[in-house]
Amino acid sequence: MIKHFDQGEILNADSYYRRNLINCLSGYKSLNLIGTINLNGATNLAPFSQVFHIGASPPVVGILFRPHTVKRDTLENILETGFFTMNHVTSEFYKEAHWAAANWKGSEFEGTGLHEEYFPGFKAPFVKGSPLKLACSLVETQTLKVNQTVLVIGKIDHIFVDEKGLRADGSLDLNALDTVSVSGLDEYHTGEKLARLTYPKSTHLPDII
Amino acid sequence: MIKHFDQGEILNADSYYRRNLINCLSGYKSLNLIGTINLNGATNLAPFSQVFHIGASPPVVGILFRPHTVKRDTLENILETGFFTMNHVTSEFYKEAHWAAANWKGSEFEGTGLHEEYFPGFKAPFVKGSPLKLACSLVETQTLKVNQTVLVIGKIDHIFVDEKGLRADGSLDLNALDTVSVSGLDEYHTGEKLARLTYPKSTHLPDII
Repeated sequence: MIKHFDQGEILNADSYYRRNLINCLSGYKSLNLIGTINLNGATNLAPFSQVFHIGASPPVVGILFRPHTVKRDTLENILETGFFTMNHVTSEFYKEAHWAAANWKGSEFEGTGLHEEYFPGFKAPFVKGSPLKLACSLVETQTLKVNQTVLVIGKIDHIFVDEKGLRADGSLDLNALDTVSVSGLDEYHTGEKLARLTYPKSTHLPDII
Repeated sequence: MIKHFDQGEILNADSYYRRNLINCLSGYKSLNLIGTINLNGATNLAPFSQVFHIGASPPVVGILFRPHTVKRDTLENILETGFFTMNHVTSEFYKEAHWAAANWKGSEFEGTGLHEEYFPGFKAPFVKGSPLKLACSLVETQTLKVNQTVLVIGKIDHIFVDEKGLRADGSLDLNALDTVSVSGLDEYHTGEKLARLTYPKSTHLPDII
């Protein structure tokens, strides 16, 4: 059976119900821990599911932040220093990644027990043990008129990837890296590969590579 | 072993290798087939992995389009009519979804054998058999200065979801819906749930719900 919600039913739903539903609609979302440091040297770590690929040449990613009306350490640190890291989350530490979203007085690294790691010459902290780590620098920000969310655009300066997940053609085996995805606000998943498919041509159904 | 790429190595990599690598960096991506129709009644269907949640109240989604320098039927139809649908892809028809990205002379629906479905009063076509279908209308577009990608923002007017995947709290069981995710340019995955976790509080590690 198909359940239909029209716009009135969506808007009039209980706010908890609506948030759960709307946050699930796009499907599986990528999960990255974003590491930052402020000018006083205080580190911050927060999970984000709103990270996406913007371009490959130059390599650029986007992150969407909720409206900048309350204190947002990650966004403020990025604006202040211009640097951040992105770190894939595995099934080994997805609970700690979720926990990093709690309201901590000090650094989320201390609170959750996830370990900081640094690369010489790059100030922002990485998550030790993450199989895919990116060092990024701020390019620009744009505020979306529709609801004042802030789009941060960063360029990728360094990639660190566990070789067990790096294929000869440059693609990553996310199953081998044990990368985790998220749905909605609180549900975590590993991936199970169906197939890689050949470049699509109208003459025939794509083949499994 | 960890493989390190600095920015020079990223930029100097073979373009096929670089595209594969950069497209994999964000992690698992959501996959949606976007259905549109032009003013002459010609339908179009295309797979997108750049769809994300922007806000729950009002319910708003964003889609990122590559630079609008060549013909882009989906984007042009959305700008022309103001309407589009988003449809989750399952393991039953992920090959056809990939195939929809081929260069078709006529409609992708005819070419791939995926069936159109309509909702009274809403012009754009849905994908019959998709377990999660959204009817959306255009709110605004923004062009990103960094590389002229176009961000389309749409509001969600209708949700159609197979009840087997709708939980009492409004969240969706994407495993039950058989929703598929994508990594890189051509690799498809189902999800395998690790757990849902309780709201994060600094006092204790989140529990499994």
